[in-house]
Amino acid sequence: MTAPAPTVPTPPGPLILVIVGGSIAAVKAPSVLRRLRERGAQVRVIATDAALAFVTELSLATAAAHEVATDTTWFSPRPDAQHLTLARADAVVVVGASADLLARAAGGHASDLASATLLSVRAPVLWVPAMNEKMWTHPAVQANAETLRGWGHRFLGPEVGAFGTAGEGSGLGRMAEPEEIAAAVLALLTPPVPQDLAGLHVVVSAGPTREYLDPVRFISNPSSGKMGFAVAEEARDRGARVTLVTGPVTLPDPPGVTVSRIETALELRDAVLNAAQDAQIVVMTAAVADYRAAEAATEKQAKVAGDVTVTLTPNPDILAELGREKGERVLVGFAMETHAGVERAAAKAGRKNADFILLNYPTREGTAFGGDDNEVTLVRPDGSHEAWPRLSKREVARRLLDEARRVRGTAR
Amino acid sequence: MTAPAPTVPTPPGPLILVIVGGSIAAVKAPSVLRRLRERGAQVRVIATDAALAFVTELSLATAAAHEVATDTTWFSPRPDAQHLTLARADAVVVVGASADLLARAAGGHASDLASATLLSVRAPVLWVPAMNEKMWTHPAVQANAETLRGWGHRFLGPEVGAFGTAGEGSGLGRMAEPEEIAAAVLALLTPPVPQDLAGLHVVVSAGPTREYLDPVRFISNPSSGKMGFAVAEEARDRGARVTLVTGPVTLPDPPGVTVSRIETALELRDAVLNAAQDAQIVVMTAAVADYRAAEAATEKQAKVAGDVTVTLTPNPDILAELGREKGERVLVGFAMETHAGVERAAAKAGRKNADFILLNYPTREGTAFGGDDNEVTLVRPDGSHEAWPRLSKREVARRLLDEARRVRGTAR
Repeated sequence: MTAPAPTVPTPPGPLILVIVGGSIAAVKAPSVLRRLRERGAQVRVIATDAALAFVTELSLATAAAHEVATDTTWFSPRPDAQHLTLARADAVVVVGASADLLARAAGGHASDLASATLLSVRAPVLWVPAMNEKMWTHPAVQANAETLRGWGHRFLGPEVGAFGTAGEGSGLGRMAEPEEIAAAVLALLTPPVPQDLAGLHVVVSAGPTREYLDPVRFISNPSSGKMGFAVAEEARDRGARVTLVTGPVTLPDPPGVTVSRIETALELRDAVLNAAQDAQIVVMTAAVADYRAAEAATEKQAKVAGDVTVTLTPNPDILAELGREKGERVLVGFAMETHAGVERAAAKAGRKNADFILLNYPTREGTAFGGDDNEVTLVRPDGSHEAWPRLSKREVARRLLDEARRVRGTAR
Repeated sequence: MTAPAPTVPTPPGPLILVIVGGSIAAVKAPSVLRRLRERGAQVRVIATDAALAFVTELSLATAAAHEVATDTTWFSPRPDAQHLTLARADAVVVVGASADLLARAAGGHASDLASATLLSVRAPVLWVPAMNEKMWTHPAVQANAETLRGWGHRFLGPEVGAFGTAGEGSGLGRMAEPEEIAAAVLALLTPPVPQDLAGLHVVVSAGPTREYLDPVRFISNPSSGKMGFAVAEEARDRGARVTLVTGPVTLPDPPGVTVSRIETALELRDAVLNAAQDAQIVVMTAAVADYRAAEAATEKQAKVAGDVTVTLTPNPDILAELGREKGERVLVGFAMETHAGVERAAAKAGRKNADFILLNYPTREGTAFGGDDNEVTLVRPDGSHEAWPRLSKREVARRLLDEARRVRGTAR
C-alpha cells in the first residue's frame, strides 16, 4: 500500500484588494471584508479620504486583519511605491464607489492612492457603486461607467426596483449586499463554467403528482423534487435553454428556467410532451402516480360506516410514450426498486427505449438541513451498469448530463 | 348615514434613544437606526467618544436623519441640559455596549453624555453588549451587569453558541443582529401580552395524514398545517403549555412548543389521545384521512394493465373518540363542507359532543408569499352560528381560543 502523502498546508487564498469609496454604503465595507476572509481570501484595503468620513480606519483594519492603505500612507516616506505593491492583487473590488471615484478612474487621474492603483492594476476589477439614483443616471456618470467597461471592468448594481421608488423623498441607489459582493468578486476569479450545452433545449420533470379521488382527497408519493431542480439548474449553468415541469413542491422557481407547475399525471404528460417537441435531452425524475380514480366525484364524499372499494385506472406511461417517437433525442429515466433492481431497470430501459436509467432504493430518507445527497446506479438497456457513490444531487446531475452528452456523441 | 370622521394625521412613532458604545460592533449602529425608522420609530443618537473610533458621526447622522449628540455637543454652550432633553425618550437601547460603559453606568458615573443620560432616564433600557468572551465572563463585568439588571435594565446577548466557539483564533462576543435589536427594542414598548392561559395545557393537531397503500404510494390531502401552527403559537404566547401533533409539512418547529411528527391517522390518534389526558383544551385542525388501505403491501406493486380495485377501511373518528370522555375539556373541531354547511356542522358537533366547530369551504386556495388568510363560520351544537370575515389565520386562532376560554366559563 502506498504511504499517505505529507499534508501540504492549504495554499493561501486569492489576494483581493478592496477599495472603499466615499459613500454612505462605505459603512458596510467591514462586512464585505469579513465575508471575503470567511471564504478563505486574503484582503488588502485602500480607503479614500472621502470614505473615512463614513467609516473609520480602525473598523477596516480590524475587519481586514491588516493595515489599511490611505493617501497618508502613500505619501509617507516609505521604501516601496504603494500603488504598485497593492496592484499585485488577484482581483480588485471597489465597494461603495462614488461618482467622483468613477470620474477619476475614467479620466486617468492618479491624484490619490485608489486611482493611482487602478491605473497600475492588471487584475480584474469589479465596481460596486453606491450613489443617489439621480447621480447614477446622469450622462457624465454613465459616460465614465462606459469608459471603464471599455477596459473590461465589471459593475455590480446599483439596483433600482421595477416600480421605481414609491412615495416622496429620495430612494438611494442601493448598493448590493455584502454576501452578493463577496460572491461576485470571487466569481471573477473562478474560471467560468464551460458552456457545453449552449444552444440545446433540455426538458426535465420533477416532484410528485396528485390524483384526486374527490375535491379533498388524492393519491400521491413522498418526493421532494430536489433531484429534478438540481438537473435543471446544472443544465442552465452550462448554457442550455431549460423547461422544468414540476409537481407540487415547496421549492421556489430557479431564475433563468421556464417553469410550469402541474398536479396530475395527465397534466404532466401534456406539459412534458408539449415541451419535448424541440428538445434534444429529456430527463424524467418526477415520481409519477401509476393510477388515477376511474371517475372523480365533484363533491366531498360523506364518511359512511364499513369498507368501500375504489376503482383505479392506469395513467399513461409518459416515459414509454416518449420512447416511441424518440428520434435524435436523449431520453433518461429514473427507477425505484426494492430488490433485484439492476435487471429490472435494464429491462425497463429496453422496453421503453430509454438511453439509460438511474436506479435507487426506497430507503426512508434521512433529511439534514440545507442539502440532500443521493446514491444511484446507472443502468443501460444492454445491462452494463456503474454504481455511483453517495453524492450530492447537484453532483449526480452533473454526471447525468455528461453521460447524456456522451450518448449524443459528437465531437465538441 | 353617519358623516366621515376627519382624517387625523398618524401619531408620530415612539422616540427611541440609541446610545452607541465603543466596540467593533458599533459599525452596525447605522443599520439599527434604519431598521428602527423603517418601523415608524423616531430616533435620537448618542455616540460615546470611543464609539467614534469605530463609526463616524456622518454615518450615524445620515442613518438617524438627525444630529448626533456627543460629549462635544454636551459641553458646548447650549441653552438646554442635553442629558435631560435626551432622557425624555420612550425607550433607550445601548448598541455595542462596551465593558467600560457598563462599568460607568453601574457605578453611577456621569463623566460623559451617555452615562449622564442613563442616570436621568426613566424609560426602559436595553443593553446590547459587544465584547470579547473573556471580558464578558469576567466577574467585574458580570457584577456590573447584575447591578444594572437590579434597576430593571434588560440585556440582549452577547450570544455564545452551545458548543462554545469551535476552532482557534478569538471568537467575538457577537452582538445580536440589527433586526433582532430593533425588534427587541420595540418589544419593550408594546405592552406585554396578557398571560391568560398560564397553567393550562393545550393540545393541537395540524396538517394532513398519509395512508400508505405500499412503500411508495399513499392517500392524503392538500393541507399546509398553517392553521394548526397558528393556534399553537397563539396559545404559547398567552402562557399555555402546548403540545402540537402534526402531519408531514415543511414548517419548522415553533420554539417553546412540544412537537411530535406523525404520518398516518392511527399515529395521529395515539399521539393526540396520549397528550390529551391532562389537557384542558383540545383543538383538531388536522385534515385526517377517513380511510386507510385494508392491508398495506410491503413491496412496491408492479404496474399491471387494466383496472384494479383497492379496499379501504375506515380510520377511527378521533374527534368522536375525544367527545366520548370529554369531562371538563373544551373540544374544538374543524369541518369542511361543499354545501349546506351550517346544519351539517351543527349536527356533527352535537353528534361528537364538540363544544363548537369552525366551518369552511374547500375552494382552491390562492397562495401569496408570507401570509395566509382564512374565512370560517363558528357553529355550535345548538345551531347558533357566527360568520367571521376574511381574517389572517393568526387572528382566527386568537378568536378561537377566546371562545374556548368563554366556554370554560369562569371569571379569572
